[in-house]
Amino acid sequence: MNMERIEKVLRKTDADALLLCDPHAIHYLINEKFSPGERFLGLLLDKEGKTKLFLNALFPFEPTEGLETVVYSDTDSLVEVLKPHLHPEWILGVDKNMPARFLLPIMKNGLVKDCVDGSLPVDRTRAVKEKDELEKLRRASKINDEAMAIFKTLVKDGISERQIADQMLKIYQDLGADGYSFEPCVAFGKNAADPHHMPDDTVLKEGDAVLFDVGCLYQGYCSDMTRTFFYKKGPSGIRKRIYDLVRKANEDAERSIKAGVRLCDIDSIARKVIEDGGYGPYFTHRLGHFIGTEVHEYGDVSQSFIDLTEVGNVFSIEPGIYDPETLGCRIEDLVIVTEEGCEVLNHYPHEIEIIG
Amino acid sequence: MNMERIEKVLRKTDADALLLCDPHAIHYLINEKFSPGERFLGLLLDKEGKTKLFLNALFPFEPTEGLETVVYSDTDSLVEVLKPHLHPEWILGVDKNMPARFLLPIMKNGLVKDCVDGSLPVDRTRAVKEKDELEKLRRASKINDEAMAIFKTLVKDGISERQIADQMLKIYQDLGADGYSFEPCVAFGKNAADPHHMPDDTVLKEGDAVLFDVGCLYQGYCSDMTRTFFYKKGPSGIRKRIYDLVRKANEDAERSIKAGVRLCDIDSIARKVIEDGGYGPYFTHRLGHFIGTEVHEYGDVSQSFIDLTEVGNVFSIEPGIYDPETLGCRIEDLVIVTEEGCEVLNHYPHEIEIIG
Repeated sequence: MNMERIEKVLRKTDADALLLCDPHAIHYLINEKFSPGERFLGLLLDKEGKTKLFLNALFPFEPTEGLETVVYSDTDSLVEVLKPHLHPEWILGVDKNMPARFLLPIMKNGLVKDCVDGSLPVDRTRAVKEKDELEKLRRASKINDEAMAIFKTLVKDGISERQIADQMLKIYQDLGADGYSFEPCVAFGKNAADPHHMPDDTVLKEGDAVLFDVGCLYQGYCSDMTRTFFYKKGPSGIRKRIYDLVRKANEDAERSIKAGVRLCDIDSIARKVIEDGGYGPYFTHRLGHFIGTEVHEYGDVSQSFIDLTEVGNVFSIEPGIYDPETLGCRIEDLVIVTEEGCEVLNHYPHEIEIIG
Repeated sequence: MNMERIEKVLRKTDADALLLCDPHAIHYLINEKFSPGERFLGLLLDKEGKTKLFLNALFPFEPTEGLETVVYSDTDSLVEVLKPHLHPEWILGVDKNMPARFLLPIMKNGLVKDCVDGSLPVDRTRAVKEKDELEKLRRASKINDEAMAIFKTLVKDGISERQIADQMLKIYQDLGADGYSFEPCVAFGKNAADPHHMPDDTVLKEGDAVLFDVGCLYQGYCSDMTRTFFYKKGPSGIRKRIYDLVRKANEDAERSIKAGVRLCDIDSIARKVIEDGGYGPYFTHRLGHFIGTEVHEYGDVSQSFIDLTEVGNVFSIEPGIYDPETLGCRIEDLVIVTEEGCEVLNHYPHEIEIIG
């Protein structure tokens, strides 16, 4: 149980109670990690400070002070399990990730008056990292920097994307990481112009861009970084111009960050660099995403996100230009927002680097 | 596009339209695989046979005949994107896995008259495997049998659960699998009494149970098998009795399977063996789950599932007894339902086996 976090969440809540089901949100609030798969897992927080955990009998759990545990079995009906703990007059804040198969029965059986998306108070609390969380994030990114320096040495004639990707987990583990924060993206040549390319049997050739979008987990916290290298031959002409635009978009955006600026304005700075360079339509995604125990957490650096940054926010800055005809390129760092600026967590250089 | 499957689904649907968002369900129906992360991905099927895919601009997609694609960007509002394609008089069948953050805006902005869980027609179609799906499932389980024979040889003095688990992926890949179907469970001694134990630093000792619950992916299809071995010294007395009960529960249940029996009755047969042996309360989960492109698909072998088996259903039979004081033990196979019986996909023996 982390009563301090639970109280922060309840102070931000208008609903009569919150019913969370995302294992990451629950872990954040009660320090217990579950992988319930398709089974219902619920944490009910009510305004009176009562906290109840709904848990399938399959998952062993030691009783915790202050946390009532309601154990149900595979043959119990969810409605019957929840009914005694909800109230027909309540506005219930439900987890943004609660699946329809749980949400619809709760809404349609008079268990509560109405359901609303109740995740914002949790998400906003999670978005401001505490000191020890920042330490773990720094360490995860430090490992990621070290790993990037090794990954680039794997690139050689005849190797495929998949053959490189297959070696990454062990490298991370040897550097002290606990695993991937997401499946690594390794993209050669044209594949780098697909922002979410998955490693396949594509084989490298001279002059190819080599894009690594990679991250590891350290004590439950994620790193996430992208670099775009060039194999044996550097970019020239329009390809160099694209690289330089992406780099400038990244660095201008990072320089603009400090507490109290609008997230959409950070996005605008990077977007303007790319638009002014004539590549606006080729930058097809938001500039960044928040990160913590999940690689994508609530909070975007995008045109639609007008919230102000706060000290302790951690997010990615990852402009890209994806032109299948010339070059796909992305440069991504993680940053921590500070009072006067930001701390960039990735120190692997941004310069054009020829490898192989 | 797989029009045959789409038509099967629509024939089973009462709703005016279905809005699916689960990438597995969408892959099944249109042969395209997406990993949308937190972004909205939707497949709309209406009764007139029109098929529309809602896709973030981030994910490149080649137009497919018969499939209208609606591309939106990170800054678009979901309600505005969907509105022109829904109807205020519709009863919309939504994906059972649609998260509240998408479902609530659809329900609360007059886009449709009402939402109901619309996954059953898809799930029931997916539950009857086609010939080539069965072939891939057989192959995935054959690899799993071969892998089990190797995994047991990794067990030796001083090794930890995690050290064994870390070697499994490569073994699967060398045998022709594409990866895990789920993170492997390796449990020594008391840990075997936690049905969902994750490998940790526990070190083996003589006489320990060694439980492997493991599976791989072959061309997108899953295997899943559990065996419980004994390290250097076989079980005797009450421990042997527990093992024999679990084995009998597994084999009696498998013998009872054929098309047209109630899934709950298969569960009852295994449960009765364990209850009659005095261990009812220690068998804390359903007897089995359906499996295919996901390791847990719709369909349970449990007391609450009264549907009849059909030819081509594929599910697990996995009775277990979990007594932390004496022994945790589970024996799991996959089976294909046939007209007259079932085809057991796992051939690794059930006999007590002393390893190390």
